[in-house]
Amino acid sequence: MKSGFHIPSFLIDEIICRSNIHRMAQKALAHGLIFRPHFKTHQSVEVGEWFKDEGIRAITVSSLTMAAIFADAGWNDITIAFPMNIRETDGINHLAGKIRLNLLFDMPQQALVASKKIAHPAGYFIKADVGYHRSGVEPNDHETIQLILKATQGTSLTFKGFLTHSGNTYHANSRDEILGIHNDAIGLLHELKLQYQSLYPEILISIGDTPSCSIAKNFTGIDEIRPGNFAYFDLMQYHLGSCGFDEIAAAVICPVISVYPRRNQALIYGGAVHLSKESIISKNGDKIFGLVVPFISDKWENPQGDDYLVSLSQEHGIFTTESQWSKSLNTGDIVAVIPVHSCLAADLLKK
Amino acid sequence: MKSGFHIPSFLIDEIICRSNIHRMAQKALAHGLIFRPHFKTHQSVEVGEWFKDEGIRAITVSSLTMAAIFADAGWNDITIAFPMNIRETDGINHLAGKIRLNLLFDMPQQALVASKKIAHPAGYFIKADVGYHRSGVEPNDHETIQLILKATQGTSLTFKGFLTHSGNTYHANSRDEILGIHNDAIGLLHELKLQYQSLYPEILISIGDTPSCSIAKNFTGIDEIRPGNFAYFDLMQYHLGSCGFDEIAAAVICPVISVYPRRNQALIYGGAVHLSKESIISKNGDKIFGLVVPFISDKWENPQGDDYLVSLSQEHGIFTTESQWSKSLNTGDIVAVIPVHSCLAADLLKK
Repeated sequence: MKSGFHIPSFLIDEIICRSNIHRMAQKALAHGLIFRPHFKTHQSVEVGEWFKDEGIRAITVSSLTMAAIFADAGWNDITIAFPMNIRETDGINHLAGKIRLNLLFDMPQQALVASKKIAHPAGYFIKADVGYHRSGVEPNDHETIQLILKATQGTSLTFKGFLTHSGNTYHANSRDEILGIHNDAIGLLHELKLQYQSLYPEILISIGDTPSCSIAKNFTGIDEIRPGNFAYFDLMQYHLGSCGFDEIAAAVICPVISVYPRRNQALIYGGAVHLSKESIISKNGDKIFGLVVPFISDKWENPQGDDYLVSLSQEHGIFTTESQWSKSLNTGDIVAVIPVHSCLAADLLKK
Repeated sequence: MKSGFHIPSFLIDEIICRSNIHRMAQKALAHGLIFRPHFKTHQSVEVGEWFKDEGIRAITVSSLTMAAIFADAGWNDITIAFPMNIRETDGINHLAGKIRLNLLFDMPQQALVASKKIAHPAGYFIKADVGYHRSGVEPNDHETIQLILKATQGTSLTFKGFLTHSGNTYHANSRDEILGIHNDAIGLLHELKLQYQSLYPEILISIGDTPSCSIAKNFTGIDEIRPGNFAYFDLMQYHLGSCGFDEIAAAVICPVISVYPRRNQALIYGGAVHLSKESIISKNGDKIFGLVVPFISDKWENPQGDDYLVSLSQEHGIFTTESQWSKSLNTGDIVAVIPVHSCLAADLLKK
């Protein structure tokens, strides 16, 4: 029995990942867009270097902790794409003294605290909620926008523009639906830009979601894209149509522990603490947590059938043995699991 | 503004946790049961000491990695309640040379590999599937049971009995349903015991789930209990009726980032990488990921209303501001989140 992979292990295919990065960088270039990739997906200094090799110099993260890690790794132009946590003002101010830092506001209070406490020059975006309803100012809420702009006048903070994340594309059921959400979003953002660019001629419009950035061809009015997941993609993106199976760059390698031919299922060592409990609904209407595929010569292969993980507990993963290949598996074999959400699996297994 | 809790932090109430441990230990004693608590919930050497203070000397874990950690911390009687991973045979053999180790088999092949490779004395349980259908041998599959027993004859491995985990109680809708699952399980296990104890008079029957161990009063035929979650409990157990709110011993403390009165929602810094995406369905039929309650003087308080987390992404948590209290929250405030599943939140935030 070959050694290695005796416990669940996150594996990246460097060639595919570099190719995904290259393709998105080229797409941004072709559309005249600033490419500021989100590093929350990989959170890896090593993978960061692959972006650097594509000429990327500006990045996005979603916490001050991550910003500090990548600043230490030499990145000096970072947007924290999460509304400012005013309890971290000291750390933010410290980092703003070291690198070019952009913050995010969606409440005047955040801007007021930042204006008072951030002594070093920093940029900020106003987070706009163009339909996802997670965070952000509604685009017609000019009162709030004006209060934020007013709070920062004459301070070390510079208004950089409007930023959004159409995370609702992740719940879409078709490429057309993704494009519909994207087009609605860029319409609202373009309008915002027209309303504010007379006073702020330099403002940028920044969008973020991987589905839109992957499949859209229309970026009218957009200046910057911040996708992150596209570097790895995953089962969710594959099901959404954002990528082909051969563009998925990450998998979790797991040992088969037991097989249960009586119920066409098998057990892997690989559970919620390795893959996360993120699920999607398969085309058969089942809740699934990953797709099990062969792992041969250190490479994962194409799916052999609907060998889906149908249940996860802390360390256990149960999958249905639908294909001829999976029915032939035995204890001690090694399989690859394409995770539903690579960002969460990467976070769980980063070490 | 008080310092601390500027990022999501896992907090344990030591008094409540010790009281939960004491109560379960007393219950086991009253029913003449061996109490071998599952340490996968806390995975904490420090919390382990609180068990030691209650006289606990034998424990359960769900991976060889955890077993090695607790063996290093002085625990010398450990059951790995996960079917044996034959790719970890060397590590298992090494540990069996140091402590009293019990393994789990649900396939003859595992027993065959163990018989060949485990040189040090070790015990083993046969995992029985009495309804959860995650892992285990069906109780009527005597052929498989016999093959396992045969494979270990004349080896360093000793048959200890049958072990099960009725994880299906976690999906029950009432205390009566939990008791129904429990009674069915102990009926099947008792029958197994009667069938095998003439040849193996010392065999034990071991059960594990927190809901059954918390509320059942009938343990006929059972020798050992292995609950783990009860040390912390959580929102799932509270909703199941396994515990009172005042018995919940763990919460994730999070800063409020933004409030959105237009849609009665607020954003916390606390997402899937802190709480896990484990969800339950609220009494209103909504999918929820946690309950937001006040956090005052370093203690969490009773719920003020249905202030449920309704959406989680990597670092974002969105909750509905249903109560008067939650409607008055502002950016920079600190709240406590009662997680749906404390085991997963503890795993995510252990550091």
